[in-house]
Amino acid sequence: MPLVQKRRVTRQISIGNVKIGSEAPICVQSMTNTQTQDVKATTRQILALEKVGCEIIRVAVPDMEAALAIEKIKQQITIPIIADIHFDYRLALASARAGADALRINPGNIGETKKIRAVVDCAKDHGIPIRIGVNAGSLEKQIEQRLGTTAEAMVESAIRNIKILEDLNFYDIKVSLKASDVSRTVKAYQLLSLKTNVPFHVGVTEAGGLYAGITKSAIGIGMLLAQGLGDTIRVSLTRDPVEEIRTGFEILRALGIRSRGPELISCPTCGRCKIDLFKIAEKVEKALLEHPSQIKVAIMGCIVNGPGEAKEADIGIAGGDGMGILFKKGKVIRKIHQDQLVDQLLGEIDNMTKTSEELNGTKE
Amino acid sequence: MPLVQKRRVTRQISIGNVKIGSEAPICVQSMTNTQTQDVKATTRQILALEKVGCEIIRVAVPDMEAALAIEKIKQQITIPIIADIHFDYRLALASARAGADALRINPGNIGETKKIRAVVDCAKDHGIPIRIGVNAGSLEKQIEQRLGTTAEAMVESAIRNIKILEDLNFYDIKVSLKASDVSRTVKAYQLLSLKTNVPFHVGVTEAGGLYAGITKSAIGIGMLLAQGLGDTIRVSLTRDPVEEIRTGFEILRALGIRSRGPELISCPTCGRCKIDLFKIAEKVEKALLEHPSQIKVAIMGCIVNGPGEAKEADIGIAGGDGMGILFKKGKVIRKIHQDQLVDQLLGEIDNMTKTSEELNGTKE
Repeated sequence: MPLVQKRRVTRQISIGNVKIGSEAPICVQSMTNTQTQDVKATTRQILALEKVGCEIIRVAVPDMEAALAIEKIKQQITIPIIADIHFDYRLALASARAGADALRINPGNIGETKKIRAVVDCAKDHGIPIRIGVNAGSLEKQIEQRLGTTAEAMVESAIRNIKILEDLNFYDIKVSLKASDVSRTVKAYQLLSLKTNVPFHVGVTEAGGLYAGITKSAIGIGMLLAQGLGDTIRVSLTRDPVEEIRTGFEILRALGIRSRGPELISCPTCGRCKIDLFKIAEKVEKALLEHPSQIKVAIMGCIVNGPGEAKEADIGIAGGDGMGILFKKGKVIRKIHQDQLVDQLLGEIDNMTKTSEELNGTKE
Repeated sequence: MPLVQKRRVTRQISIGNVKIGSEAPICVQSMTNTQTQDVKATTRQILALEKVGCEIIRVAVPDMEAALAIEKIKQQITIPIIADIHFDYRLALASARAGADALRINPGNIGETKKIRAVVDCAKDHGIPIRIGVNAGSLEKQIEQRLGTTAEAMVESAIRNIKILEDLNFYDIKVSLKASDVSRTVKAYQLLSLKTNVPFHVGVTEAGGLYAGITKSAIGIGMLLAQGLGDTIRVSLTRDPVEEIRTGFEILRALGIRSRGPELISCPTCGRCKIDLFKIAEKVEKALLEHPSQIKVAIMGCIVNGPGEAKEADIGIAGGDGMGILFKKGKVIRKIHQDQLVDQLLGEIDNMTKTSEELNGTKE
């Protein structure tokens, strides 16, 4: 059985120049946590996110000032922007006019039909999709009373919202079905996948801090992607959104779906390790965070096992007593004093990257 | 389809007083990274690990001094200890005599049959199991030459090592099959599960630092546990092993298999949040790290959505402008000044815990 099943066939939509669904690469997105009205802070955060690979950004639009800010933000960023709106259809109209590349609004929450129609017409005019975002914690009352906050209730809410849009001949839709636990999240997407070909935005909501957040997101998103479900992902962490993007790409890499930047493998160390490997691993990880190459780098605790166990790495270091060795594909290249280990490793990586760029003619 | 399939039926072994396999709870273990010879440092680390729930600890035994240290370490700790030995059968014998509750040694690496027999006889005499630890990076040469470092090669190595022990009428075995990537790790356990009923120690090796390490471990271990495979788990991180244990329990909790301590859900915040939620969430997370209760606590960014979206939480706070609210099961209890939010939340949690202990008669 392959680790990742064949991907679900969906309709395809475009958010700005990013295609979502079907054969398009599964994309990694995040949401700003700055005040959207603060154009400078929001732009700064989006640029930091672009640097680590964020491909779509969502911003909260709680008022008209935030909607209007989108125009100025867009002038300074390159990735598409989604306006996140609760209830107020005027904010959706203003966001679209300000240049939002998609709207996240649940039509069932907008109210009167003419308001829904106004949003749909506006989205059509601007050629932008709508994301329906179902959240187990904010279901329609009548659905929750009947079905509770179950996966089934989430699916019914999604279908209801999709129908509202499709009845108005609007098909440019993606859907998310988020709960704060893995079980309901996975089940909801599984159920909905049997009933529509709308592309899925996948994530576990309010996942929590670093440990719980990464773990729940990795298992939830990971299990769904492994089943072929999911066209764009968002890791939700109570942390700097840059860390959401890092985790998102780690999930895709762990499943062999997409890779970005160097891959670091490193041992947990044990009583055989006579070097401060944690500090070394952190330094290397930080230095390679925005490195363009896709090589595999190993940071190993001991000379006896290190190079052999990590022979699949393109390059690596292993710690000895006060010193270490540099190895490539399991073969020892040279001994290095402990203080020089990181610098020499990074130098070698730069050299290898340059050489491969020259060989491939990819050097600019 | 349930999130977690029926657990694989295995033979059951005991490491000290901890049962592994079949109906026994899936247990969470780690490995020290201190010099095992340093009894004080190693004991201190194990006691810290016990505090966060570590149920079995492994220590490296690179020399005779380390083997002898086990006796002194054991006097000061309560969880069972596994001696990790490469090649040298005398270290296995000495570790068993020093009171190790299990040996991790691959019989195929020991050498002459009489040495293997000596280790097996010693393990029988002391009534302790042997863990066979197959690692894709250190396979037997003849297997690697034929099959490479594939999942199939790992399985063949495991079967060969199991056979050596079982041919000597030794059945008190658990097996691990670790690679540094999720794909081979998962495949190897899947294949071996069809060929033996030996319990599985599950993990992804050299998984890396915080992001890659947690992500790979959560997906790899998570997918296996979801398929019913795995009897004891070890998360491998290039970090303090305490964080391995935390992540291990987060994996079990995410799958609904076991829970330990309070569950924290928290939102990633967005442009609607007017409070420093990251700091608050970190404070609460830290304060609850060793808290005995199993309640669900929510830390939400905004008053409008927070209490509703987190109505499944037993208790929570949501941030407003310079203040916040305390809610229970989605119902607002009171407004609180921002500086008092964390203290009052923790106070309420303590009260709830005491009340429930009194109700359940579990108070000591």
